Amino acid sequence: MLSKQTFAFTQAVKQQYRLLSILTPGKNRQERDTFGPIEVPGDKYWGAQTQRSLQNFKIGGERERMPLPVVRAFGLLKKAAAQANKNFGLDVKVADAIIKASDEVAAGKLNEHFPLVVWQTGSGTQSNMNANEVIANRAIEILGGELGSKLVHPNDHVNRSQSSNDSFPTVMHVATVLEVNERLIPHLKELIHSLKAKSEEFKDVIKIGRTHTQDATPLTLGQEFGGYVAQLENGLKRVEVALHDVLEIAQGGTAVGTGLNTYIGFAEDVAANLKKETGYDFKTAPNKFESLASKDSLVFLHGALNTVATSLFKIANDIRFLGSGPRCGLGELSLPENEPGSSIMPGKVNPTQCEALTMVCAQVFGNQVAVTVGGASGHFELNVFKPLIIRNVLHSINLLADACDSFNKNCVVGIVANRERIDKLLNESLMLVTALNPHIGYDKAAAIAKKAHKEHSTLKEAALKLGYLTEKEFALWVRPENMLGPEEFKK
Amino acid sequence: MLSKQTFAFTQAVKQQYRLLSILTPGKNRQERDTFGPIEVPGDKYWGAQTQRSLQNFKIGGERERMPLPVVRAFGLLKKAAAQANKNFGLDVKVADAIIKASDEVAAGKLNEHFPLVVWQTGSGTQSNMNANEVIANRAIEILGGELGSKLVHPNDHVNRSQSSNDSFPTVMHVATVLEVNERLIPHLKELIHSLKAKSEEFKDVIKIGRTHTQDATPLTLGQEFGGYVAQLENGLKRVEVALHDVLEIAQGGTAVGTGLNTYIGFAEDVAANLKKETGYDFKTAPNKFESLASKDSLVFLHGALNTVATSLFKIANDIRFLGSGPRCGLGELSLPENEPGSSIMPGKVNPTQCEALTMVCAQVFGNQVAVTVGGASGHFELNVFKPLIIRNVLHSINLLADACDSFNKNCVVGIVANRERIDKLLNESLMLVTALNPHIGYDKAAAIAKKAHKEHSTLKEAALKLGYLTEKEFALWVRPENMLGPEEFKK
Amino acid sequence: MLSKQTFAFTQAVKQQYRLLSILTPGKNRQERDTFGPIEVPGDKYWGAQTQRSLQNFKIGGERERMPLPVVRAFGLLKKAAAQANKNFGLDVKVADAIIKASDEVAAGKLNEHFPLVVWQTGSGTQSNMNANEVIANRAIEILGGELGSKLVHPNDHVNRSQSSNDSFPTVMHVATVLEVNERLIPHLKELIHSLKAKSEEFKDVIKIGRTHTQDATPLTLGQEFGGYVAQLENGLKRVEVALHDVLEIAQGGTAVGTGLNTYIGFAEDVAANLKKETGYDFKTAPNKFESLASKDSLVFLHGALNTVATSLFKIANDIRFLGSGPRCGLGELSLPENEPGSSIMPGKVNPTQCEALTMVCAQVFGNQVAVTVGGASGHFELNVFKPLIIRNVLHSINLLADACDSFNKNCVVGIVANRERIDKLLNESLMLVTALNPHIGYDKAAAIAKKAHKEHSTLKEAALKLGYLTEKEFALWVRPENMLGPEEFKK
Amino acid sequence: MLSKQTFAFTQAVKQQYRLLSILTPGKNRQERDTFGPIEVPGDKYWGAQTQRSLQNFKIGGERERMPLPVVRAFGLLKKAAAQANKNFGLDVKVADAIIKASDEVAAGKLNEHFPLVVWQTGSGTQSNMNANEVIANRAIEILGGELGSKLVHPNDHVNRSQSSNDSFPTVMHVATVLEVNERLIPHLKELIHSLKAKSEEFKDVIKIGRTHTQDATPLTLGQEFGGYVAQLENGLKRVEVALHDVLEIAQGGTAVGTGLNTYIGFAEDVAANLKKETGYDFKTAPNKFESLASKDSLVFLHGALNTVATSLFKIANDIRFLGSGPRCGLGELSLPENEPGSSIMPGKVNPTQCEALTMVCAQVFGNQVAVTVGGASGHFELNVFKPLIIRNVLHSINLLADACDSFNKNCVVGIVANRERIDKLLNESLMLVTALNPHIGYDKAAAIAKKAHKEHSTLKEAALKLGYLTEKEFALWVRPENMLGPEEFKK
Repeated sequence: MLSKQTFAFTQAVKQQYRLLSILTPGKNRQERDTFGPIEVPGDKYWGAQTQRSLQNFKIGGERERMPLPVVRAFGLLKKAAAQANKNFGLDVKVADAIIKASDEVAAGKLNEHFPLVVWQTGSGTQSNMNANEVIANRAIEILGGELGSKLVHPNDHVNRSQSSNDSFPTVMHVATVLEVNERLIPHLKELIHSLKAKSEEFKDVIKIGRTHTQDATPLTLGQEFGGYVAQLENGLKRVEVALHDVLEIAQGGTAVGTGLNTYIGFAEDVAANLKKETGYDFKTAPNKFESLASKDSLVFLHGALNTVATSLFKIANDIRFLGSGPRCGLGELSLPENEPGSSIMPGKVNPTQCEALTMVCAQVFGNQVAVTVGGASGHFELNVFKPLIIRNVLHSINLLADACDSFNKNCVVGIVANRERIDKLLNESLMLVTALNPHIGYDKAAAIAKKAHKEHSTLKEAALKLGYLTEKEFALWVRPENMLGPEEFKK
Repeated sequence: MLSKQTFAFTQAVKQQYRLLSILTPGKNRQERDTFGPIEVPGDKYWGAQTQRSLQNFKIGGERERMPLPVVRAFGLLKKAAAQANKNFGLDVKVADAIIKASDEVAAGKLNEHFPLVVWQTGSGTQSNMNANEVIANRAIEILGGELGSKLVHPNDHVNRSQSSNDSFPTVMHVATVLEVNERLIPHLKELIHSLKAKSEEFKDVIKIGRTHTQDATPLTLGQEFGGYVAQLENGLKRVEVALHDVLEIAQGGTAVGTGLNTYIGFAEDVAANLKKETGYDFKTAPNKFESLASKDSLVFLHGALNTVATSLFKIANDIRFLGSGPRCGLGELSLPENEPGSSIMPGKVNPTQCEALTMVCAQVFGNQVAVTVGGASGHFELNVFKPLIIRNVLHSINLLADACDSFNKNCVVGIVANRERIDKLLNESLMLVTALNPHIGYDKAAAIAKKAHKEHSTLKEAALKLGYLTEKEFALWVRPENMLGPEEFKK
Repeated sequence: MLSKQTFAFTQAVKQQYRLLSILTPGKNRQERDTFGPIEVPGDKYWGAQTQRSLQNFKIGGERERMPLPVVRAFGLLKKAAAQANKNFGLDVKVADAIIKASDEVAAGKLNEHFPLVVWQTGSGTQSNMNANEVIANRAIEILGGELGSKLVHPNDHVNRSQSSNDSFPTVMHVATVLEVNERLIPHLKELIHSLKAKSEEFKDVIKIGRTHTQDATPLTLGQEFGGYVAQLENGLKRVEVALHDVLEIAQGGTAVGTGLNTYIGFAEDVAANLKKETGYDFKTAPNKFESLASKDSLVFLHGALNTVATSLFKIANDIRFLGSGPRCGLGELSLPENEPGSSIMPGKVNPTQCEALTMVCAQVFGNQVAVTVGGASGHFELNVFKPLIIRNVLHSINLLADACDSFNKNCVVGIVANRERIDKLLNESLMLVTALNPHIGYDKAAAIAKKAHKEHSTLKEAALKLGYLTEKEFALWVRPENMLGPEEFKK
Repeated sequence: MLSKQTFAFTQAVKQQYRLLSILTPGKNRQERDTFGPIEVPGDKYWGAQTQRSLQNFKIGGERERMPLPVVRAFGLLKKAAAQANKNFGLDVKVADAIIKASDEVAAGKLNEHFPLVVWQTGSGTQSNMNANEVIANRAIEILGGELGSKLVHPNDHVNRSQSSNDSFPTVMHVATVLEVNERLIPHLKELIHSLKAKSEEFKDVIKIGRTHTQDATPLTLGQEFGGYVAQLENGLKRVEVALHDVLEIAQGGTAVGTGLNTYIGFAEDVAANLKKETGYDFKTAPNKFESLASKDSLVFLHGALNTVATSLFKIANDIRFLGSGPRCGLGELSLPENEPGSSIMPGKVNPTQCEALTMVCAQVFGNQVAVTVGGASGHFELNVFKPLIIRNVLHSINLLADACDSFNKNCVVGIVANRERIDKLLNESLMLVTALNPHIGYDKAAAIAKKAHKEHSTLKEAALKLGYLTEKEFALWVRPENMLGPEEFKK
């Protein structure tokens, strides 16, 4: 019977929620919001609104928590806001404590105090309040106060001049800019670098081309890899271009985009502080209504990620087929052997890195739809699919960055050209007959190819048998190395 | 400058990988596979192949680990296989130790020993070996042997008569069947139950209908909720129908579907054991080539999940609009207030449960594409997008199950009809004029409606002003309660 | 300069709209609706509302017209409704004229009178009115009246007891049921039949298996094709199951699902008439609110079409790779040569049927998203993405039906196994070494495989060189035909 | 029984194929290719390869023909190639005849001679040969020769120095650049212009804001429309940026990207000629291997189209909800009445233009997946999903262009603000209480709001009843016009 095991397993699974939300009698603290008092775990900085969200949104469990780059970006934003608020009347001591606490958040030191999942309110309000509450309580602690005392107030101080409706989209942009620049672009560049090096290494390896998966005229393996390089270099440029609009931040729009309850100049100050802190060129968005009501810039950025995934899917597929074998596939490439393929089959190398990479790409194709539906489904002054959108954007960035890195280090750098096999296929191919056209005419060339195909012989054998040319002539005329580019026109 | 913070944050993020893979000098154990020896953490049961995967696939981090229901299903499968293997020559003592260890895996007790991520080899081989290695070492321990000694061998004993190529798809099916039955269906049924109760509760609340988002003829709020019930009841049936094929398991196909290296009868025994253990009607798949090379049954099941998400998206959208207000929206429903909407705005209830649910649905729409691309991209004897597929199927099941539960408990059960508002809108509506047609004719009825529209008056006011009927007649004839169904035909 | 050509081309393109909407002075007729009079082309049966839609929705041009199966279904529905209306007071002479005119619509004789595009009102009202107007005018003509005279009235007679809101979804279901049954299922069955025949034909052709695109243990080509058969047989069943709910029709729900303005019994009569007329088991939907407000049954059906496309994509990909070559690919299959591949390359056959089929599948994957978004985006009592949904459902059915037919006739039936090549690859493979394990032990077997791999020799050569067994023993033990299934367990 | 009607309908449907492919005895002409002779219709210019494709790819029928912009682009390309070929040895008389015939193709005069469907070989070879054959025969006619005589040869002359593998992707880019510039951008700009005008017109209309679909603080209707303008202006820029890479053309790569069989300088000449002819800045692609093996630039462009669709979906949704009513919806906007909504309901205007536009957007979301899967699925030197890709890219451009135009002309320009209703909602709203905080303090303000909510009264009524302020003070302090932006900070 299942019952016992089901029970045990269900307990284990539920554990994830318990970790998030269950309180320990006697070890709790009381926090309060406009709904009244509520117990929170004594060893956590979060407050009432975070706790309510934990209890109201038991969706997905631990693995579905708001991504850490969002937490980090909250740290950066709340610091930038506190710095700006110094110019707009916030007490300096309070501001400095907020800045210190925010620094800790940005440095990932308080990650365990951010337990909320993605599947909450669509404005991200609860995560914004989570940040406000954690920073407030930590700042209180820094100032020697009592947790929950509101000495530093989550709304009045930490969230001062802000609304969730402009803070959360700001944080989405900050997180995205940082992750693309610090994770995706470096790993993508490294992969491009390795492919370029391979393209150079293979520049003299002439091989059969394949179109429609069928034999075609030759090219070099270096040219083939050069195509991959071009794809990814273009992809990189597209990501960079699309990231441009993401530098524009919503902060300053407050609740509906008008900027009610903030001060003239606050938006610009926050952007300047973020720029100074991170080194990226953040600026205040020219139209805050657009910034709150839509997330088009992230939909477009994901379109660029989707294009990179399209390229990577093609490249990884090529490499796994070119490396197929060892005996019964194409066998032109040897891929590094990273783990046992089979205990009895030496030479059986499964292209596992290609597999991981193409799976990641398929996930990105799916995430594209989630981001699009989320982006399209906003109403009036606020898009309320924001946690969904940022989750998928960061998921795609994270997976693509790691998969590029893994594919590069564990596959591309170790690719070896099986020159013997490549040569053999090239020379057995019938496509080289094209080179004879100018010398013996189309009809005789075709006859040679047909005979070779029918008799399963080489072109040379067929040519000599038919007596259309000598072995010397064949060697002179059928030269793949002369089939690699356009020729000079001679009048 | 960012540098310090970036460093800190990057460290924090990398932590997730370190947790997975970094070894502690002096506390390790040596394991070995056909690639030779390798260090593994001394306090973990996993062996060499798991460790290699950890090092070769640093993609996505901790949150991207193989979902726990897969781990559980491995426990169930390896137990069923060991039971079957007793009939095919496996030493009883070894078999019993394997069974005991597998029970622990199935009960979620060894979850921390399954560190591998989804983004690995596309056959799931590494997770299968992870299960084999953990169970082998735990069984060795049970038998009093030394970890790593291969007294119980991961391949020869635990994986006996099996291949990753048939075990992993079996585990995919087992995990799916269990999660759908134990999590999705119960929560979906509860939601249906609540909506049905509301439909009953609201059966006499007559309200204005809306088509094209515009005013239309009336219906009852109960009828409106009845439509939701019908959608979800159909959706439930579709999931159940689609789950049918998922009960067919691949076990017995071994490497390519032929069943080489297994025994006649093994496949049937494993299926029978799984059925006995879980209570679900697992059976051996009639065509193992299909079972290994495709995952169509999960693509189809996800199509059913996608349809349920389509329904839920519509329902949640309706409820949030019907609950919009409090003053400037439709305002027909009051949704439960679960958390502060705004500190100053009593009555402002954000439909946060609707937001979480529609975000979940959008994610399912995206997962549908990932599953489809994965399902379509297999080659020859093996689909190698399996971890991607099962990740997305389980992700959708998990999110839908939890979101149904949360939406039900935190929203639907507490929905209140604002009868006064509903009445007001109904009575102000111009569509009721339809009821006058049989009494005063189309032209006069139209004239009444036009006058009311132009003068922003009620139908009654306009009717009386025009003198087409008396107040008594109006009360007698314009009765929304007579507009709720087809009429009897009288010759 | 472009200007002249752009002008010419733009003219040519605009032609498509002109064909639809431009009137010829002196050859027009006046029609009228509640908006007043409007000119329509004198030689067309359509009336005022059709003409207005033509002028208001110039989107996409001629190729974007409502699909013809929808027109046909309107013919069938309006006939069924007129038959039913005879029992509910409609004048028999009028009813009979409507029935006759509807028959002509159903037979495709009046297709040119249905000019409206898909991209119109989301309820399909304008297409419903197009049908009402064309049938009314044609019925008037049959009765000897004057076009536009409303002797037979589009609303009062043809649309009697109906609303666009229940008629259009009914027509969607009727069109889908007919197209699936008359086009998709037959062609899918023929394809399955051919693949089955090939599976039988190839049942003794033993070949190397491929997993991870790498060499694996052998199977028969018949088994490989048998996997394809199983995929499509399952797919067929899924389509049939999903079609079940589509047999339930919305007719009788009228404007919002309540059935206002229709008679008790009308819905059942229409369904019965449709069943009698078509032979398919149509029935009135148990919940009309669901029928109008959602199109979940079509979302689910498309999920089944999507699964069939997933299977076909895999199968076509396999066949193109197995047929790759002629010299430098896998070369196990010869595909029929239907058109010149290259003028000089005999034997170069491009797998063009596989290409067309996989492109069709990719389109279906895209259509799935359109259908899903459309299905999810309804509001309140009416889904207004209906023309989009039916367009995509019929597009997928149409493309899959034709592509199955084309792939079957122009590719599958002519596939030839290159037995020599298949044999050669099988015998060169190193995987057969597995068969030696029971005879000479794992270590010696591995040594043979390693030596063969290293020296690019065959297993037999390596085995004999190492002296581990005799040529006779090799012939006796290494028999691929013994590797095709599980073995009998002997205690 | 269905049989008769099915037969009739099936005949009508099959007609579409017959139109394409059926020959008329006695009216045919014989053409030939390397496969031998074949009959073609005597009144058509196409030749043997087109005819074979017609017979081999009966998929989808007439509406699935290669889009006309592709035909036009073939005209432009073949002209540019013939001009270039004059410098590379092509006889001037032949070249001039080709140029003249190509001009006719580009002008849309020979559209009926391009009968092939999208669902053909994935390289577009058959459409390229269709263009070559039509132009060759028309050029022969111009020169006074006999059709089919090959006096002007489709391959040797029209296709000289070209391959389908570089011509078809070139044509894809040319068609896309032209359609985006001539159709999408102008219509998008017009729509932006109208929205901007409305934003200006409504700049003083203060209205209630809505977040989470719930009442929020006020903004102007002009600000709301300004957000739409910003979305579309950004979208326009994104399309323009993405179009950049599409200006790079593949011509010169020939069969596999190497440029075999073309001359140095040909690629550059063709690009220059196309630039001169069209006015758009076409240039030869820097890496031809990328150009043939991938279509990433179109995947990225479609990502930009997808983003525009995301914006339009949101805007159209807003407008339909803001225009909902007339009595029971939000009712802030009046949309133009373009067609009868209901025969009895004056004032019932269905937002049909919003419906058509959102359906178009949903189609674009679907097309995005088709383009992505097509882009990702290329192998080795050639992507063979090209007709699918260009079909979907042009479909999205065409639908978006037309739908923007239709939405603009038939909806946006006629939108009227219902100022009275907007005012009423604004004044009834409870959110304005925020303005009292600085004057009477949070607690009293909250008490007023709570009382108003409970008693269904206005804020003013509640405030006066509570006696917290005078009517004059209320009028002075509660001024929505002061809630539209950030305030000046005063120390």
